Amino acid sequence: MKGGELRLFGVKGLPEISKGMDIAPAILGALKKQGETLQDGDVVVVTQKIVSKAEGRVRPLSSYKPSKLAKALASSLEKDPRHVEAILQESKRILRAERGVIIAETKHGFVCANAGIDHSNIDQGMISLLPKNPDASARRIREGIRKAGVDVAVIITDTFGRPFREGHVNFAIGIAGISPMLDYRGRDDGYGNTLKVTTVAIADEIASSAELVMGKLDRIPVAVVRGYKYAKRDGRARELVRPSSMNLFR
Amino acid sequence: MKGGELRLFGVKGLPEISKGMDIAPAILGALKKQGETLQDGDVVVVTQKIVSKAEGRVRPLSSYKPSKLAKALASSLEKDPRHVEAILQESKRILRAERGVIIAETKHGFVCANAGIDHSNIDQGMISLLPKNPDASARRIREGIRKAGVDVAVIITDTFGRPFREGHVNFAIGIAGISPMLDYRGRDDGYGNTLKVTTVAIADEIASSAELVMGKLDRIPVAVVRGYKYAKRDGRARELVRPSSMNLFR
Repeated sequence: MKGGELRLFGVKGLPEISKGMDIAPAILGALKKQGETLQDGDVVVVTQKIVSKAEGRVRPLSSYKPSKLAKALASSLEKDPRHVEAILQESKRILRAERGVIIAETKHGFVCANAGIDHSNIDQGMISLLPKNPDASARRIREGIRKAGVDVAVIITDTFGRPFREGHVNFAIGIAGISPMLDYRGRDDGYGNTLKVTTVAIADEIASSAELVMGKLDRIPVAVVRGYKYAKRDGRARELVRPSSMNLFR
Repeated sequence: MKGGELRLFGVKGLPEISKGMDIAPAILGALKKQGETLQDGDVVVVTQKIVSKAEGRVRPLSSYKPSKLAKALASSLEKDPRHVEAILQESKRILRAERGVIIAETKHGFVCANAGIDHSNIDQGMISLLPKNPDASARRIREGIRKAGVDVAVIITDTFGRPFREGHVNFAIGIAGISPMLDYRGRDDGYGNTLKVTTVAIADEIASSAELVMGKLDRIPVAVVRGYKYAKRDGRARELVRPSSMNLFR
């Protein structure tokens, strides 16, 4: 399921996405204007931001009424108490709150700063929450594209920081039509050694690769990864989340 | 520094790399056989394994004499005490030792399982250690390619697990001729919001993207990423390592 050659390109010229809009036709239309068409087996990578916009997950900060806890946390972190309230509402668990950042486990199980809430690439005074069920969002976009006769995989991504490493990278938060993992366990490496533990999170690697053609300032919220041979299975982003009991990096 | 289109391809047919061999000519020779030539601005991604082989960092397990500590740890983890001794020798600090895995901070500062030591894709009975100074290794390969008249960036990679997420992905452990980070801080997003904290670890994203064409079983230890416009600066992989005092994910 490896090797060969990949082509990656960004999809420009999407309209501004608003609540209730259907993303699949917007992607197909923008591709057409660009002189490109999707092919069976392509992976369509979509940034969380436009999915959240389409699903009404962009809210005015002023709509949040901070609780006592939110106010106390906000004051110690020098954050807006309404922003902290939004983070608390989207979180299952707060891991740390320090130096202006809240590290939270979201209701989906993702561990990231500020529960994935941010306020870039949206109108001022608004915040964007992660989609409620990003796998379902990915399936909807995949279905929409399938209606146009093309069988693709879809990965919805967001940019998170990482423990121990500087800088943010793109991660898969929702997937459809692709197994998120490539499992080498038990296979021979050609030197007579059996590979014991190597499971590669290819959905995250595809997310990272797509970020290289997307850009945060160029309004390229979608990328196409062509040529990667993947296992067609309706995977779940949940498979990428390690149960906290199994997390050895504490 | 973004956008456009990328082409990624694996470099096949490299000879088996042994101690003292020069990697740059081996890459150039394999590319030639493949009908490809490098271009200015390409990023050449090289797996740690062949760099370690060339630098004599592949050692017989039998050459390690386990200390008392290594023996005690090995017994509780059900690991080979010589393997544990090798891990201890390559580590600055042990973060955890549990369920057969030692999470260590290597002398370079990378936090990973077993200090990056493994025994796949090498002869049986041998273990491979990370290169001593992977940035210097990357610079040497870059210089070797520059002698052939092409100005490329080089990234040396290894596959590590991640806290909170299942599966391994490729990370940059050595770099030359490229800034590892793309810094958006202070730039406007087009909606009037100033981006505050977004620094993207593009060296890690390029490493991840290259893994998609490399493969652990196909003897494709090198990949070329073409079309990515990066800041030409002699970066250091150290810039990707977060000082432990700044690590909020504890």
